[in-house]
This record gives sequence, structure tokens and C-alpha cells, in this order.
Amino acid sequence: MSAAPGRTVGIDVGGTKCLGVALDQDGEIVAEDRRPTPRGPGSLPDLIDTLTELVGVLGPYDAVGVGVPGLVTRTGILRSAANLDGVADFDVAGQLGSRLGHEVHVDNDATCAAVAEWLLGAGVGCTDMVLVTLGTGIGGGLVSGGQLQRGSHGFAGEYGHMVVDPTGPPCPCGRRGCWERYASGSGLARLAREAAIGRRADRVLQLAGGDPEAVRGEMVQQAAREGDAEALAVIDDFGRWVALGLVNLTNVLDPELFVLGGGLAAGADLYLEPIKAWFGELIYQPELRPMPEIAFARWNERAGAVGAALLHTAHEGFSAL
Amino acid sequence: MSAAPGRTVGIDVGGTKCLGVALDQDGEIVAEDRRPTPRGPGSLPDLIDTLTELVGVLGPYDAVGVGVPGLVTRTGILRSAANLDGVADFDVAGQLGSRLGHEVHVDNDATCAAVAEWLLGAGVGCTDMVLVTLGTGIGGGLVSGGQLQRGSHGFAGEYGHMVVDPTGPPCPCGRRGCWERYASGSGLARLAREAAIGRRADRVLQLAGGDPEAVRGEMVQQAAREGDAEALAVIDDFGRWVALGLVNLTNVLDPELFVLGGGLAAGADLYLEPIKAWFGELIYQPELRPMPEIAFARWNERAGAVGAALLHTAHEGFSAL
Repeated sequence: MSAAPGRTVGIDVGGTKCLGVALDQDGEIVAEDRRPTPRGPGSLPDLIDTLTELVGVLGPYDAVGVGVPGLVTRTGILRSAANLDGVADFDVAGQLGSRLGHEVHVDNDATCAAVAEWLLGAGVGCTDMVLVTLGTGIGGGLVSGGQLQRGSHGFAGEYGHMVVDPTGPPCPCGRRGCWERYASGSGLARLAREAAIGRRADRVLQLAGGDPEAVRGEMVQQAAREGDAEALAVIDDFGRWVALGLVNLTNVLDPELFVLGGGLAAGADLYLEPIKAWFGELIYQPELRPMPEIAFARWNERAGAVGAALLHTAHEGFSAL
Repeated sequence: MSAAPGRTVGIDVGGTKCLGVALDQDGEIVAEDRRPTPRGPGSLPDLIDTLTELVGVLGPYDAVGVGVPGLVTRTGILRSAANLDGVADFDVAGQLGSRLGHEVHVDNDATCAAVAEWLLGAGVGCTDMVLVTLGTGIGGGLVSGGQLQRGSHGFAGEYGHMVVDPTGPPCPCGRRGCWERYASGSGLARLAREAAIGRRADRVLQLAGGDPEAVRGEMVQQAAREGDAEALAVIDDFGRWVALGLVNLTNVLDPELFVLGGGLAAGADLYLEPIKAWFGELIYQPELRPMPEIAFARWNERAGAVGAALLHTAHEGFSAL
């Protein structure tokens, strides 16, 4: 880490695009660009090419970071990634570092989002902050005691696979009742489909053309914005499941702030009040503790790239204390 | 914190006794004493008297710490304690500190146990360690990134009230399906009673004199040690519930080590293998990650007192890195 890193570059590798930003030393975005993510068998070398090119376009830089989807080790190796082809122990940090002739910091995309919110977003100044991304699944990152926590292998923050009901619906991971079966975008759609099948979501069913299997989360949002009581009940149920997981995380970590990010942040106005109300219902000994704040993320789609650009700081034990 | 604290005193306040130890600068116990915990209405001033007396007996000291059962704020105020009478915002650190004319560090007893195991027990050298106490209920403490983590208000590590089945059995806390309904000593007894009622634990039922309501965890242990298959099945089920919570904690924290303490540590030989086997079954992506070690605590009944004697170190940002 240079004594005073100035301009930094961060790239968020998504399933469809790689989004890159350059930040100046005040954390302002001074350049931004994107490229399609190379896909298909044998495309990983192309991905390194794409990242190298993006860094070149966005440079110069004092530090470079990359956020990738999946389990990332503390040394920047991507163990697996559902949305990239052929990944198995893909050494992003080493391969891109060799191409650039410069150290590259790599971490999970949701961990990058946590860094962005902590250092430049909703969590500035927090010592204990939990970021939860509510997207197709659930991911996250955490700050405890004024430090980014990555876990002993780099895999901390995989909240989505906390089991909240061992007899619940099957999860693609092979278990049952993982939190993301209820509290993610696909969880919302599942809850809405069940309501539609049970004729407890007629307007949502209508928006899906009468086919319960065609129900999507967006239809619940649309119906709820029209004031449909059944859609609002689905959202209340969804809020209860989100809150249940946040309560579990509070029992473990006692954060001062939860930041909710991911695709569902677009519907924050609908979800925030039910989540807060259920959190108050479900938390242990509410009368004895201050409630943590629950807020939606500031950075949205740029969170991963902005956080990647700041990884050098968070990885080297920067303390907000 | 003095530059080189030498002899330190720690006291663990339990529901029946206060156990105190003095440690020398090498962490060896050089003195030990105990007093009955004053109980009954209006007994809190007596408790301060008792603590003052114990410190006097165990002194001299460079640092003093006290572990107390219940929610403890970061400034050493005991918000509530089920096993002490009349506690409501009881300022243990302030009151004992005034009597001694010396700073007093106070924390939750399970957090103290985590400190003992981290600095002088099963977790020496760990940067990411989770201690779980399996007693009447479940408590705990955690070390992440080489720091003791207390949470923003001091309440981190209350694992027992993670909800693992929202439609599960009622918990005295007012919710349903808290982890400690399954994975604590009272959880083991509950699982065994249900097995006895269902005639799936005949030897255990016999040991309880034929009354399912009289079934206790010790009877399951005894029958299991006799080789009774039904009792071993109850312990396997118990091990699955313990593992389920450890898996959830792994998804959040990715520790390198779990230390299991509390009263059930006495039956470690019976529980450890089922817990490890179920952990391997239930963890997300086992093929991609090293398994955390799962071990029983070294300190047992002295854990709280030893950890209390070391609190001054852990509270002031000591890092094992």
C-alpha cells in the first residue's frame, strides 16, 4: 500500500458485464466504463484480457481491485462462481497482477459492496455494520470492531445459506430452508407464487396472465404500488423473513447498522417498513437494547466496483475507529 | 492498561457462586477462591461487597475483571440477568471500581470464556474463533480478524436466540424455534422427553422411573454410555441441531475454530463425533472449503474467571495477529 494512494481503479465482474470505475483520492468517480463479460467454455483467459483492457482505459492508478461473484479466498482465488463458466480455483489476483505488473486485490462482490457502503456510503463511521445483498440470492459482507471481516478463509458473509427452517423448501445448494429461499428476489417470487396458487394474490396472478408459475417479484411490487391488499400481505410476509435473518445476525454480531443492497433495493420504499416492524417483533429482549438502524444501500449497481477500488484499504487492516 | 500487567484477578459471577482466580504474568493460576452469590431482593449491594472481598483475598493485582451472566453493555453495565435478583442496569464496573479505586473490566460470562480459550486455551493463535457455551441455554463469544468482537452495544455472541425453525417449540424469550430449544442442555432433555413419549427411548424412560417428564440429559448420557441405540439416536439428533447452528455461524463468520464449552462439555466424548459428522453434511459447499476445527473447551468451570482476569487485554484491542 503506497503511503497515500491517489487514483484507484475497481472492477465488478458480473454475469453479463464487467463494470469499472476510477476513484480520485476523495472517493469521487472520475471515470467509468464497462465491457460484456466473456462467457462460454474456455473464456477465462478472455476475462483476464477484458479486465486488463478495462484497467488500461480507466488508469492511471495507484491501486487496483476486482470484485467477483462466488467464494473467494483471502489470496484472491475464485473457488467457484455460478455465473461464470469453467471457474475452479481461478487465480484472478495472480493472473491479472502478472498482466498489470501490479498488486491486485480481489474479493467477493458482496464484500466489495460492504466496503463501498462502509467507506463511502450508508455506513460511513460505523464500527459494526452488516451489508446484506438481496438479489436473486443473498450475499453480504461485514465490518466488526472497525475492521472488514473476511473470515479465516475469506468466506465470511455467506448469509444466504443460513438455515432458518430445516424442513423448509429445498435450496439448489442441496439443503432445505436456507434464508435465501425466503428473503431474496427468488424468495419473494416463491412466496408470491404460493399465494397466487392459494388464491391469496389475485391481482398478482392477473398480472402474470393467470399463470402462477409466471409470477415474478416485480408483479408483487406493481400490485402493491396499486394498493392491492393481497400483494401488500405478500410483502409483509417477505419482510418477516428478511427480519428473521437480520435478527439472527443481530444475535451473533450486534451491529449498529444493517445496509440492504442488491436488486431489491429498487423497491426499498415497499419493504423497509415491514422489515423494521418485524425486526422489532422478532428481536430478543427489544426493551433492553437500542435497535440497529436498517437502511438501504447508497451505491446500488456501482457498489461492487466502488468497493473493489477501495479494497486495498480494507484488506490492509484500515480501521475506522 | 499498565505497560506490562503482571498479576491479574478475575471473578466469574454465577447464579450460585462467585469464583475468583489470580493469574500471574504467564497466565498461571496462582490463587483461587469462591463465595456464595448473594441472592434475594436487595442483594446487589451484598454482591458488590462479596466481589470486593474476593478481590482483596486474591490480590495484589494490576488489572481486575468480572464476568456476569446476561446482557452487558460495552461500559460494563449489566442490563439484565435471569440468574441474579433485581438486576436492571446494574453498574458493576462503576460500583466495584469505586470500591477498589481501580478500573474494572466487565463482560458477559460467555464472552469471558471466549477470551480464556482464545488467549490461554483451545484457541491460542486463532484470528477467527467462535466459542459456543452449551449449558442450560446457549451463549458465546467471538474473535474475528484477531480481535475480540463485542458488537456495537456489547451484545454480540447471543447465539442461543438465533431462530432455526420459526414454527418450532416455544422459547421462554417469547419466540419460537430458538437454537437453544434444540442444542442446549435443556434442548437435549426436550429431545429425549419427546423420544421417550414416542417410545423411542425406552432405556432413558426406565432411568427416569417411567415418567417422561422426569427425563434429563444425564439419563441420555448414561444410557448412551451403556450402548443403548435409542439413546445414541437421541444424541445423533442433538448433534444435528448443534451442527445446524454451527453451520449458520460458519456462513456468517467463517471461523477456523469452534470451541464448545458449558456444562455439556462434560459429555464431549459422546457429542463430538455426531456434531462433526452432521457439520460435514450440512455445510454449504464442503468440497470448496477447509472444514473449521470443532473442539471442546479447555477451561470448563474456570473459563469465566480466567477470561475475566484477561479482559483488560482483550478490551483494549489486543491483537493476536
